[in-house]
Amino acid sequence: MKTIAAVRRWRAGAAGPVVLVPTMGALHAGHVSLMEKAREEAGPGGAVIVSIFVNPTQFGPKEDLGRYPRPWEADRAKCARLGVAAIFRPEPGEMYADDRSTWVNEEAVSQGLCGASRPGHFRGVATVVLKLFNIVDADAAVFGRKDLQQCRVIARMVRDLDVPIRLVWGETVREADGLALSSRNVYLSEEERRQAPALRRGLLAARAAFRKGEERAARLRAIVAREITSQPLATVDYIEVVDGSSLAPVKRARRGDAIALAVWFGKTRLIDNVEM
Amino acid sequence: MKTIAAVRRWRAGAAGPVVLVPTMGALHAGHVSLMEKAREEAGPGGAVIVSIFVNPTQFGPKEDLGRYPRPWEADRAKCARLGVAAIFRPEPGEMYADDRSTWVNEEAVSQGLCGASRPGHFRGVATVVLKLFNIVDADAAVFGRKDLQQCRVIARMVRDLDVPIRLVWGETVREADGLALSSRNVYLSEEERRQAPALRRGLLAARAAFRKGEERAARLRAIVAREITSQPLATVDYIEVVDGSSLAPVKRARRGDAIALAVWFGKTRLIDNVEM
Repeated sequence: MKTIAAVRRWRAGAAGPVVLVPTMGALHAGHVSLMEKAREEAGPGGAVIVSIFVNPTQFGPKEDLGRYPRPWEADRAKCARLGVAAIFRPEPGEMYADDRSTWVNEEAVSQGLCGASRPGHFRGVATVVLKLFNIVDADAAVFGRKDLQQCRVIARMVRDLDVPIRLVWGETVREADGLALSSRNVYLSEEERRQAPALRRGLLAARAAFRKGEERAARLRAIVAREITSQPLATVDYIEVVDGSSLAPVKRARRGDAIALAVWFGKTRLIDNVEM
Repeated sequence: MKTIAAVRRWRAGAAGPVVLVPTMGALHAGHVSLMEKAREEAGPGGAVIVSIFVNPTQFGPKEDLGRYPRPWEADRAKCARLGVAAIFRPEPGEMYADDRSTWVNEEAVSQGLCGASRPGHFRGVATVVLKLFNIVDADAAVFGRKDLQQCRVIARMVRDLDVPIRLVWGETVREADGLALSSRNVYLSEEERRQAPALRRGLLAARAAFRKGEERAARLRAIVAREITSQPLATVDYIEVVDGSSLAPVKRARRGDAIALAVWFGKTRLIDNVEM
């Protein structure tokens, strides 16, 4: 379906629970796991709808909107194989009027971390996700934990605006060497790809130190940084120890806190996190 | 009902269409006419729900939040008489978490006019109205045309965020001498009250001039201003000739444009408008 009207007609005809998986397409095994989770949530009488929309308003002017992968036929095949009932893949003109002027601004959880490096990103995310919620009128929506800050921003928005939807978090899916799956991994050169698992190694090393009693955020950050900066092609954007819910930086880590990071490999920015 | 949960239970049990009339209480004949319109919209099988919430986030720090009238028993009686099925009157703590951080910002229609005099006002309005829409899940909502800019901001928000609700506009109800009904009219001294109908007289004089061929906005504004400034207790906040939809100021008036104004009488700010 390419139009909002078509989605609303489809929704009106759906009998059981409807579960939405919002994506930007370029579906990988991480998305597949979200779709499988959505299938479980929907139950035997329910339906899963996947949205595929490379949302321009969440990309900065110098970001990778233009080159973001859009393998539509492969995406469609994956959805079909997984028993997805419907796909909503609008063009930007269907989602945004030329004179659009309304934005959803989450002003706390979206500060810092990726919000600091990507001004306007979470405004774009919150706005398009609310639009998708309003268009689909789903009972639940599934998001991947890899995008930790996105999860927390959406949870805050849903709470603050009383959005009638249940949020479900899917676990991060990884390559055998620990690299979190991302549609952006295709940008990596062979050598960058070899170095990228350092993100996960650093996070696991810090979590191990935490479990052995290290609570000082500065020390935990240093453990992560050491692993990553040992890779010559990696440039750290941020490494932060944060409260698991508000994502505010903490000085001493406690159970439920998280370590989040973003790292550049050339023009490719990768993110990952671990909860403690 | 004082809780969101109670409203949602009530909504789940409603069989026919539900029509919402959002108010700040202190209900007058203008609200009554909105409720009657809501009854018509709901039809014989439907239900009208009125919200009464003096929303703190749409008041500026020096505005009249504290003294805004809250005649609950009289409001309840009026709703009962009009066959309103339910009233939602939450305390601020039910609507806003202490760490709330999400706002709906409409950035075009809310500029200028009252938006210029009342920074943050329409952010508060858009946010609380979206929350009410999400809480009540109404099929339609009724707003009064006296608050022209509020109507346009909400219409833009509903369009931009794909909010699944039908908007209905109710006509302004006036005293015999033309003063638009407002819960704030009770603030007026006897002498201010005597002078206040100049707002309406000025707007009607300008509309009459327009109908006779005067299109120049500057001339139309001067006609309104002359009438109002002849009242010694009146201080003009703004008088603008605007596009009827975007509310952008125009140089030459056309059919469908509007003249909007705000005028101070002492500490009381009155607004009115006329569509041409």
